[in-house]
Amino acid sequence: MTATRTAPLGTASAFHVAAGEPLGSDELQRIDAYWRAANYLSVGQIYLMGDPLLREPLQPAQVKPRLLGHWGTTPGLNLLYAHLSRIIAARGQEVIYVTGPGHGGPGIVANTWLEGTYSEIYPRMSQDAVGMQRLFTQFSFPGGVPSHVAPETPGSIHEGGELGYSLSHAYGAALDNPDLVVACVIGDGEAETGPLAASWHSNKFLDPVGDGAVLPILHLNGYKIANPTVLARIGDDELSNLLEGYGHKPYLVAGDDPTTVHQLLAATLDVAFEEITEIQRAAREDGITGRPRWPMIVLRTPKGWTGPKVVDGLQVEGTWRAHQVPLTAARDDAAHLDSLQTWMRSYRPEELFDADGAPQSWVVDWLPRGELRMSANPHTNGGRFPRDLELPDFRDYAVKAGETAEATRVLGGWLRDVMAANVEYRNFRLVGPDETESNRLGAVLDTTGKAWQARVDEVDQHLDRHGRVMEILSETTCQGWLEGYLLTGRHGLFSCYEAFIHIVDSMFNQHAKWLKTTRHLGWRKPVPSLNYLLTSHVWRQDHNGTSHQDPGFIDHVVNKKAEVVRVYLPPDANTLLSVADHCLRSRDYVNVIVAGKQPAPTWLDMDGAALHCARGLGIWDWASNDDGDPDVVLAAAGDVPTGEILAATDLLRHHLPDLKVRVVNVVDLMRLQPDSEHPHGLPDPEFDAIFTTDRPVILAYHGYPWLIHRLTYRRTNHHNLHVRGYKEEGTTTTPFDMLVVNDMDRFHLVMDVIDRVPGLGRKAAVLRQQMVDKRAEHRAYVRRTGEDLPEIRDWVWPRTP
Amino acid sequence: MTATRTAPLGTASAFHVAAGEPLGSDELQRIDAYWRAANYLSVGQIYLMGDPLLREPLQPAQVKPRLLGHWGTTPGLNLLYAHLSRIIAARGQEVIYVTGPGHGGPGIVANTWLEGTYSEIYPRMSQDAVGMQRLFTQFSFPGGVPSHVAPETPGSIHEGGELGYSLSHAYGAALDNPDLVVACVIGDGEAETGPLAASWHSNKFLDPVGDGAVLPILHLNGYKIANPTVLARIGDDELSNLLEGYGHKPYLVAGDDPTTVHQLLAATLDVAFEEITEIQRAAREDGITGRPRWPMIVLRTPKGWTGPKVVDGLQVEGTWRAHQVPLTAARDDAAHLDSLQTWMRSYRPEELFDADGAPQSWVVDWLPRGELRMSANPHTNGGRFPRDLELPDFRDYAVKAGETAEATRVLGGWLRDVMAANVEYRNFRLVGPDETESNRLGAVLDTTGKAWQARVDEVDQHLDRHGRVMEILSETTCQGWLEGYLLTGRHGLFSCYEAFIHIVDSMFNQHAKWLKTTRHLGWRKPVPSLNYLLTSHVWRQDHNGTSHQDPGFIDHVVNKKAEVVRVYLPPDANTLLSVADHCLRSRDYVNVIVAGKQPAPTWLDMDGAALHCARGLGIWDWASNDDGDPDVVLAAAGDVPTGEILAATDLLRHHLPDLKVRVVNVVDLMRLQPDSEHPHGLPDPEFDAIFTTDRPVILAYHGYPWLIHRLTYRRTNHHNLHVRGYKEEGTTTTPFDMLVVNDMDRFHLVMDVIDRVPGLGRKAAVLRQQMVDKRAEHRAYVRRTGEDLPEIRDWVWPRTP
Repeated sequence: MTATRTAPLGTASAFHVAAGEPLGSDELQRIDAYWRAANYLSVGQIYLMGDPLLREPLQPAQVKPRLLGHWGTTPGLNLLYAHLSRIIAARGQEVIYVTGPGHGGPGIVANTWLEGTYSEIYPRMSQDAVGMQRLFTQFSFPGGVPSHVAPETPGSIHEGGELGYSLSHAYGAALDNPDLVVACVIGDGEAETGPLAASWHSNKFLDPVGDGAVLPILHLNGYKIANPTVLARIGDDELSNLLEGYGHKPYLVAGDDPTTVHQLLAATLDVAFEEITEIQRAAREDGITGRPRWPMIVLRTPKGWTGPKVVDGLQVEGTWRAHQVPLTAARDDAAHLDSLQTWMRSYRPEELFDADGAPQSWVVDWLPRGELRMSANPHTNGGRFPRDLELPDFRDYAVKAGETAEATRVLGGWLRDVMAANVEYRNFRLVGPDETESNRLGAVLDTTGKAWQARVDEVDQHLDRHGRVMEILSETTCQGWLEGYLLTGRHGLFSCYEAFIHIVDSMFNQHAKWLKTTRHLGWRKPVPSLNYLLTSHVWRQDHNGTSHQDPGFIDHVVNKKAEVVRVYLPPDANTLLSVADHCLRSRDYVNVIVAGKQPAPTWLDMDGAALHCARGLGIWDWASNDDGDPDVVLAAAGDVPTGEILAATDLLRHHLPDLKVRVVNVVDLMRLQPDSEHPHGLPDPEFDAIFTTDRPVILAYHGYPWLIHRLTYRRTNHHNLHVRGYKEEGTTTTPFDMLVVNDMDRFHLVMDVIDRVPGLGRKAAVLRQQMVDKRAEHRAYVRRTGEDLPEIRDWVWPRTP
Repeated sequence: MTATRTAPLGTASAFHVAAGEPLGSDELQRIDAYWRAANYLSVGQIYLMGDPLLREPLQPAQVKPRLLGHWGTTPGLNLLYAHLSRIIAARGQEVIYVTGPGHGGPGIVANTWLEGTYSEIYPRMSQDAVGMQRLFTQFSFPGGVPSHVAPETPGSIHEGGELGYSLSHAYGAALDNPDLVVACVIGDGEAETGPLAASWHSNKFLDPVGDGAVLPILHLNGYKIANPTVLARIGDDELSNLLEGYGHKPYLVAGDDPTTVHQLLAATLDVAFEEITEIQRAAREDGITGRPRWPMIVLRTPKGWTGPKVVDGLQVEGTWRAHQVPLTAARDDAAHLDSLQTWMRSYRPEELFDADGAPQSWVVDWLPRGELRMSANPHTNGGRFPRDLELPDFRDYAVKAGETAEATRVLGGWLRDVMAANVEYRNFRLVGPDETESNRLGAVLDTTGKAWQARVDEVDQHLDRHGRVMEILSETTCQGWLEGYLLTGRHGLFSCYEAFIHIVDSMFNQHAKWLKTTRHLGWRKPVPSLNYLLTSHVWRQDHNGTSHQDPGFIDHVVNKKAEVVRVYLPPDANTLLSVADHCLRSRDYVNVIVAGKQPAPTWLDMDGAALHCARGLGIWDWASNDDGDPDVVLAAAGDVPTGEILAATDLLRHHLPDLKVRVVNVVDLMRLQPDSEHPHGLPDPEFDAIFTTDRPVILAYHGYPWLIHRLTYRRTNHHNLHVRGYKEEGTTTTPFDMLVVNDMDRFHLVMDVIDRVPGLGRKAAVLRQQMVDKRAEHRAYVRRTGEDLPEIRDWVWPRTP
């Protein structure tokens, strides 16, 4: 045992500490040499442009003009990488490495170069002095690689920029990979975030039989950018209580003497992997069903360990000052330059690299080979066993046109059979925050249960140690699990109340950015798309009111690259089936599907629905009477708007039979954009043919109306486009009243038409006044009875399609 | 001690359990009667429209046609409300009540009606049968009140719709209110969310001397919508470990026998409040500085307690089936109707209410009076000691025009003195995720420290038990603290890296909705605005690259009601000072300020800056040569775009001196909208006068360009508007390269002008080619050297303003 400078061990602590010194002197020497090499290469990336092996005294011109990068967390990451490689080699155990600390870029790149993977993928970065110089120069350099672990980093499924998602990503990767251990390094800064804090409880959802294992390693280096971390300052007793409260068996590895820490970490990893193996064996062979207490590790080493201890008279190693670049003036200040040279030479590069600059074979020949290298593990690049989903024909689940159906319930029937058809491949999961049944997808529970390893009581239903539906009341954990699952090559669907998907806005950002980058990396294999089903949407929050009303996730999504994002607004159950089938077949997209769960009409038969979805938007001839030359276009995007546009059309055709109405429906929202802006964009001539170049267009839209203007402002007829949508009005009220308070009800839509089509005459003026009166009648009725007018509730499209 | 049906106590558990039966039989009877009254009124709200006192046998017509609401959590909330009222009355202790469980609306409304507050605020809801009938009818009814605890609920500072923020709100309310105890009920569903999980560590930031106390009460009723909760199923040992790991001393109150639970809860609250008092006394009088282990309570009672035990043959009480409306068919099904009547009569309303329908005096006469009632506590409505901030004259902090300054550092100087000027009023806090110094606001640390109650080591700086800067690496906790602080009448500023503010998108939504509602509630006092300073923005992520690049929070914000949201893009340090002064004086808004932290030119002297900010947007005559009739308008919104527009103007004026350029700058983004859309909108004639009706306008914008189109699409000259902005390109690179890859660099802007102004002739064509060459030269130079061209770095506006 050793002591950190700030918190001596040996005091009473509930932590577990492994015993023994498992490393022989040769192995110790090799692992330490490897660690020094990784540290040397990390520092080199942050600082150097020339003479990477320091064959000559360091010159200012070798130092990059702009020093960008992060050293603080790097030596700890390198240490863990080295020791995990030892475990892999010793046990033949598949391990992948999730780098939680945001700023470990140079460290992981260094390790993958030492493993050879980096040079295999990027041949210019060869394992010699030339490659090393390029490796150094490209880091945080224009045209090079970012300072975080990134899509460009081999073996990574986790971008290190935004903090908080490492542990949920790790669990997602471990699901259905029973032979895999995911080592997840959690920064103690990251540990303060909400998403990370919530994701500790993922261990209640991991099946020791069918899933792999996660080994959380809390890297307690004590400081963030400018502050100590909370978990580093609550004392060992509280910390171990906390980690045991999370359901883990925590082991402490602490110290600042390399030899001591090497031995302690090696011993601890031996114990942890032995315990993981035994937990899995007991569950798989002996049928033990108790929830295991999985091991985890707390690694307490100094921030910026082995870096400059003091700079300009201030302590750096072991403090927040080691967070970024410890010697900020290395190019301009001779003392800094000298310290940098001393620091880099302290790793004794001449021992570690040969005359050509390749790693000495004794430094790296003990590493795992081939796909066992963490940087080359296929799980991290499209999956070890990638396959498309088996999808039952969605046409078999059709609802008869004209019938009422709950769209998501119909989808649930298909998803149940998707689940069944793929159960043997173990490559499909549903995630959601306690809403699968509320969102009416409960049919899937006929084929699989809800993953659950905690206590089960007699009254419970559908809880299942091997369940494939993942529910926790944490949108961020759901999203993190699913991302980890997708990025390791499997498929899934996230169903969520529409308003609360904003909780993962920032996670979506990072995933979309990941996909944007990987689409352009030739060596990265495509991964299944991230599919959102947003339901319990803004228009039907009968129970919940204003807090549950926000359709703005679509707006958020379309800010990201057009090549990555897709938005679908199926108007009924059959179109929802078709859209969902399309999305579950796709790769490298984010697909957002918005669909209601309440009983609603089915407008199209299945052939019509499939054709409509293939077109993305189109004229509904059966509802139109325009004979190719409309007086007005009535368009809708979204299920509730579609019903309302049709009800308005019904009123207009009944009362103003001479008015020529064209009804248009939009299912693929991106069709509204020009084809120059989005791959799905409709070419201008087609758009003009459908929406005309000079007739009024009234478009009822599911969300905030201005998005439609954004998508269409370059279209010829944009100045005639009038959009109705959600304008942030409404509370707990009736379905139709929600439309009225947002001016998207059928009566108002009729008024909109009358106000915009010239020359309609007196009959229209009378109808307009009737509409005003109808709105008033509705408001009075609903406030008296709490219900919508019977004529609203009972309305059906009166003409056979 | 008693036992729940699912998890017998008495087994080994680390929980603390209070001893004794403090309630005499009379007190027990009264508190139980009050609880029954609250439960009766809660059920009545969910179900009834008529005969609220059930004087006649219950008829279907009395039952609401649409049954919307949530029963499950309500009896527990009512129990706690009753017992906290007892504590308040007994100790004269100020307590406010934060209702974490999302669906407790009817319960809290019932309690506030029993206290009399509801009738005082809403006189139609009088304390009699007529008022009771109105109270019942309005709940979850069109034109009535929502089913969650909401802004309409007296005594609430916390909307119950979206889960996860109760505890951070509670801590925010307790800050700087040393005499206040905030009782925070946390649902065990809510406890699974990330924001809640992170906020437990708030106790490391609460000062027992200067702040009040928070009493967390984890309401472990076992189920969410359709699942058990995680914390209810991990066993008492793990749960108590977890809560102790969070730094608390947890007390368990468990049972399903009312009398037993009444005694145990009363005894536990006595102990908890005694411990709180003692912790505060020790810190305040004895100067004890150790971090206290604050008490907390785990309340384990059945979900839907006292409701129907079995419905249609299925267990309801104590399960997830009690979550919403246990008897769903009470209007149509005679058995359900009968069960409802039995259920409501089980509370013995005839004992609880007098002939007029008022609460019997013995049921309520023991409640606290006046402002001690939790529903009437002034902290929950604008604050007990509301006052505007003392603001030093921002003009005194002016930077000389033409000088280079880091805008946020200049702001930091002013904020330091704002902090100092208000320190005696204890009504101003800065929050941020470990970024105050990184965002260059570190000057505030000259007057106050960073709040910190955990261990302090020698090397630490600025940690302070009484500090007023709040830093934790959790954006959600920061936001929650600040919201709680603002909603109790104090002031603050949240500084955040621009990209990561998306983490609180959904929290912003809920706060904006709260403000939208409270602005229209006459009895709600205005509260200080929620002020965001977004810095370390998209254009200057030199260290961090693509993961840190997202300017879309503005897009998200402008989806909310125009009357609530404001967006400012000050182009330099002086305008930032002026904008910040304006924001800190305002109430009931959300103000978003985006400003850089890197060295940048100061364009305007202070008088000019103040005038420019007052106008919101305007022509910069000193940069223009248009003589009132421009050939082109070059506009900018944002600090980096402003510099680039001016550099482009410089190039144009140098190379094409005959071209008449008008330079326009936008600091208040909402000025771009018509005045019909936003209170700050510029009237069309003024807009046309500035942007012309027929000349090309090139606008360089800080964020995603399409937002500008959204704001301006109704303007006359919109078809001539060409917007450059961030289009999701860029990684770790140089500042100018970021502009180049997004086509917003000066060279491209010059090309945009040449492409759009007709008849510029050969000289312009030559210049255009030079610009193309310059971009190529830049790309080559930056990839070779890692730096921007010297001419870019050294450029300054060559003309004296």
